[in-house]
Amino acid sequence: MHITYRQLQVFSSLIKTSSYAATADKLCITQAAVYMQMKLLQEQIPLSIIEKINNKITPTDTGLQLFEQAQKTIYQFSKINDFVQQTLKLEQGSLSLSVVSTAGLFATRLLKNFVEKYPKIKISLSIVNQKTMYQQLEENLCDLVIMGEPFSKNKIFQTPKANYALQAKPFMENPLVIIAPFNNKLIRKKPHTLSKLSQEKFVVREAQSGTRLAIQKHFKKYKCELKVAMEMNSGEAIKQSVAAGLGLGIVSQHTIEWELEAKKLSVVPAESFPIKRQWFVAHLTQKKLSPIATEFYNYTLQNAHKFVLQ
Amino acid sequence: MHITYRQLQVFSSLIKTSSYAATADKLCITQAAVYMQMKLLQEQIPLSIIEKINNKITPTDTGLQLFEQAQKTIYQFSKINDFVQQTLKLEQGSLSLSVVSTAGLFATRLLKNFVEKYPKIKISLSIVNQKTMYQQLEENLCDLVIMGEPFSKNKIFQTPKANYALQAKPFMENPLVIIAPFNNKLIRKKPHTLSKLSQEKFVVREAQSGTRLAIQKHFKKYKCELKVAMEMNSGEAIKQSVAAGLGLGIVSQHTIEWELEAKKLSVVPAESFPIKRQWFVAHLTQKKLSPIATEFYNYTLQNAHKFVLQ
Repeated sequence: MHITYRQLQVFSSLIKTSSYAATADKLCITQAAVYMQMKLLQEQIPLSIIEKINNKITPTDTGLQLFEQAQKTIYQFSKINDFVQQTLKLEQGSLSLSVVSTAGLFATRLLKNFVEKYPKIKISLSIVNQKTMYQQLEENLCDLVIMGEPFSKNKIFQTPKANYALQAKPFMENPLVIIAPFNNKLIRKKPHTLSKLSQEKFVVREAQSGTRLAIQKHFKKYKCELKVAMEMNSGEAIKQSVAAGLGLGIVSQHTIEWELEAKKLSVVPAESFPIKRQWFVAHLTQKKLSPIATEFYNYTLQNAHKFVLQ
Repeated sequence: MHITYRQLQVFSSLIKTSSYAATADKLCITQAAVYMQMKLLQEQIPLSIIEKINNKITPTDTGLQLFEQAQKTIYQFSKINDFVQQTLKLEQGSLSLSVVSTAGLFATRLLKNFVEKYPKIKISLSIVNQKTMYQQLEENLCDLVIMGEPFSKNKIFQTPKANYALQAKPFMENPLVIIAPFNNKLIRKKPHTLSKLSQEKFVVREAQSGTRLAIQKHFKKYKCELKVAMEMNSGEAIKQSVAAGLGLGIVSQHTIEWELEAKKLSVVPAESFPIKRQWFVAHLTQKKLSPIATEFYNYTLQNAHKFVLQ
């Protein structure tokens, strides 16, 4: 069968109005078009669906069956249409976000504001480490991610299953600053040269991490050696270690707002700092962004900077 | 929207198999046709319905909505198709018959046999007088009627609302015989001439009835006068009146089987008798006969004679 929605619509209206003229009026088409749609519909069903008795169109037994199913089908299409319309008007839909934990502080504030603007959207947020975020991308579990710099320049990342291309756009600076325990002596004299600071030992992220690579690159650029006191697998662990006096740290300024307020950490003034990295909003290149995902994408580009300490 | 059943079928299969190749295989079409149907479907929906991540087709939010509705729609079409197929195989459907009361005796026997042959068909039988039968035809309440001779030669009958054309086919002789009370003296000497019998008084149907007209025509042909003892508005009343001795009667031989058996009435042997009329099976010319109605129509033509006393 190659029955079309239009044919069902014409047929349904014809049964309801018993008139070709009224059907044409109602659907804003010509009467000839009504005849044509009915002809095309009838050709697909080996039994008559209507009969004309005394100029009144009535359905045959088969026509009555078709009418009942047509009504249901038309209702289903109206539901699809409603969904599409509401999705276009951002009044319906869902948005799945994955955010690296270091961006959690500003991303949750950004999201709160967005939710207030689009209260009918179902949002799921996942605050994860980078590895999990890549898994979620690979499994197509998230629409958008907020992350630091993607793995590589060409934004292809590899998984056991496939290579994925990422569409990633920077939307805000991600300044890396040197942190020390609160009121450490280093924060008084300023600004320190990197060669001075490189005499200190640092608590750093593991060798493969983006932040670690950025730090090593920066030290290399200034021909300084990075003395590693200890490696940590999370930003949270680094902050706690620095506060405990295990060494200095280099972390995103956007992750230490609470610790500065609570007087647990201080930022060490230093020449050539902060190291300026970027935050990225990204999605799989193959991903078809929904209207609400597109909206959040643009919203992030325009508003994220309002939610960090300048 | 001009979405087609085929598009929904292709889309639905594509979501289930996640593969264009598998969909093409399953629906026995080329892969190019699958792409084309998907392209035509997507053109009608202003939001993407599928995305391809790592060579795996998955539905978008909108696609998921469409998939759910498509599944329901496909189910509904399968139900229409089942109905059509079963109707064609005479395993489903309904048949509405209207039978004039004088034909009731053989028509019910005929029907009993038919029902045993097609037990799944829903049959409604209406035994009515001629006036009601014409009303039922006018209101398109019956598929077929079994009747005596239609009103007029061109088989157009008039109602307050419209003229209707009848498609009527004779299928069996309807012999009109002269009846008398059981063992009346007239049945001994045989056969009587009509001029002899015309000395008797007759209990007859009302002036407008087909039987009455046929009787008058017959008497006129033989240049005899019809002496009317009394007019009755039903065949039942005539039989009872004749048995009570109010006069002779002329009725269809097919209506008196029980009265002959019960020895209430006798047939009077007469020259130029029986008057040979016909039984007709008829329907509105505009009526689209269903497969089961066509079956009963042909069944009546071929078998009705088996259900009357010869």
